[in-house]
Amino acid sequence: MKKFINDVENVESEMLDGMCLAEPDKVRRLEDSNVIVRAKKKEGKVAVISGGGSGHEPAHGGFVGTGMLDAAVPGPVYTSPTPDEILKAIEAVDAGKGVFMVIKNYTGDVMNFEMAGEMADGVEIAQVVTNDDVAVEDSLYTTGRRGVAGTIFVHKIAGAAAEAGKSLAEVKAVADKVVANTRSMGVALKPSTVPAAGKPGFELGEDEMELGIGIHGEPGTSREKLQPADAIVDHLLDKIMNDDVDYTDGSEVAVIINGSGGTPLMELYILNKRVHDVLAGKGVKIAKTYVGNIMTSLDMAGASISLCKLDDEMKALLLAPADTVAFTQD
Amino acid sequence: MKKFINDVENVESEMLDGMCLAEPDKVRRLEDSNVIVRAKKKEGKVAVISGGGSGHEPAHGGFVGTGMLDAAVPGPVYTSPTPDEILKAIEAVDAGKGVFMVIKNYTGDVMNFEMAGEMADGVEIAQVVTNDDVAVEDSLYTTGRRGVAGTIFVHKIAGAAAEAGKSLAEVKAVADKVVANTRSMGVALKPSTVPAAGKPGFELGEDEMELGIGIHGEPGTSREKLQPADAIVDHLLDKIMNDDVDYTDGSEVAVIINGSGGTPLMELYILNKRVHDVLAGKGVKIAKTYVGNIMTSLDMAGASISLCKLDDEMKALLLAPADTVAFTQD
Repeated sequence: MKKFINDVENVESEMLDGMCLAEPDKVRRLEDSNVIVRAKKKEGKVAVISGGGSGHEPAHGGFVGTGMLDAAVPGPVYTSPTPDEILKAIEAVDAGKGVFMVIKNYTGDVMNFEMAGEMADGVEIAQVVTNDDVAVEDSLYTTGRRGVAGTIFVHKIAGAAAEAGKSLAEVKAVADKVVANTRSMGVALKPSTVPAAGKPGFELGEDEMELGIGIHGEPGTSREKLQPADAIVDHLLDKIMNDDVDYTDGSEVAVIINGSGGTPLMELYILNKRVHDVLAGKGVKIAKTYVGNIMTSLDMAGASISLCKLDDEMKALLLAPADTVAFTQD
Repeated sequence: MKKFINDVENVESEMLDGMCLAEPDKVRRLEDSNVIVRAKKKEGKVAVISGGGSGHEPAHGGFVGTGMLDAAVPGPVYTSPTPDEILKAIEAVDAGKGVFMVIKNYTGDVMNFEMAGEMADGVEIAQVVTNDDVAVEDSLYTTGRRGVAGTIFVHKIAGAAAEAGKSLAEVKAVADKVVANTRSMGVALKPSTVPAAGKPGFELGEDEMELGIGIHGEPGTSREKLQPADAIVDHLLDKIMNDDVDYTDGSEVAVIINGSGGTPLMELYILNKRVHDVLAGKGVKIAKTYVGNIMTSLDMAGASISLCKLDDEMKALLLAPADTVAFTQD
């Protein structure tokens, strides 16, 4: 295993300290906890929290800040955070207007966030469970579709609604719309290595790719011969656009071309070119595109495409300013 | 070779189109050229340009925009752009106040930028050659020290000076200060693969790392057994801080923890924690830290540390707003 790490037991803690030391004006770590909160608590608004296993950096701590999350709760690598950690986050960010939880659909995440929500005495809680991955219905760690990189659309749009002073019910309503209109699918070229495991999570031949990969390296829909970038995009978009969201009604979409951590920007931009060409060919207008390593899987080489079909409210909230460690927009 | 590409001949062109399609409000590509310019030309100021081989994304096109570059000139992967491409950039961005060229110290880059500068009739030209890499004096492609990730400090600070309306001589003067006060050193864990070559640029054993690596995978100072992250940071900082810049005079520094393209943020944050701990132990104050894959080497797994010792003028320009594809700061 070749990584810049010290003790495999401490990768999460050292990483979180390293993030907070880099951006002390934006984020800090709660005492005796891995929870990341804004450096300055914002009062008088709905608080938005998210989280999940570590290894997806900059998710989730990198999205804590103005216009997005109030706290992120990172578990160990690829492992759900515990209910008591989530409860610490809820109590730290609650400003009397309620706490909104953005949960990716993995069994452990859903169970632990819901348990924490029930434990939070006197705090009004609402939640959304993201399930944007069209690759598989049920998986190794999930009942129903998995929540993957499209979750970032929920962080951004629900976060902007909360920042604008919307009520907990209003934040939930727009988050539900984002979930209903966001679809993603991914592909891996090389596996990731969990530090504590010390070896890759799966094996792929030198000429193979795994289509429909999950963000923890869970198996996808098929293992196939590596194809040119354009053919891969066409396959992913075909699955995404022939799922249950209708892209033919003239609505605009937002796009995320997400890297898995080991894939450089050059390749993500090559994928993006094809995505734009295909969508243009289908008459689908793109309101905004994000390209980068946003919801990663440690050092996995791979990528995913997410589309979020927008209405006017969602578009305005997506384009609203944000200022976080990993996402800054004027 | 496992990459998201189509034809190896077209990776640069498709990548540049993909970048411009993602951020049409910020950048566009000059017709019949690979030159990236701001979507809206800024008049009445010194224009700042940079460039070099492709494969370092987001450098250099990702730094075109308000407060940084006016144009970036990308050559083929790891290959200098031609003088005629650089000349097209100069002519496109010149607004009558002169053009300032930020050149990394590689023989081909210096030669071609200088030739273009001489070809630019009627345009006042000034330049700086960055040479922040303390690893090697002379190298495979360089006479003198190499220019590496610390070059981003020059883009930012010279770009802010130009944006603020400084004259060409003033922009050059502050850029010279940045070059004199910026030092970097890198390390590789895994090599990169140039698409047209189809195989890794060098070989490293499963337990080996290359210290002092260049941004094109040029050999460094030594090949050693892989060490824990903290020991690697200590080695790099020791070399950087025992070079010719004095860090004991109470000045603040800015830090870049740069990833080589295949290294995930988790590991960069772990490196950053140690950098902050070591600098705190030495009484060196950090004014600003940037962590990310900023000046990459395709899919190389590796990282570099850059320190820029600041005075008040440099600090103010570093912290000034910028809005580019890859670098946004309020």
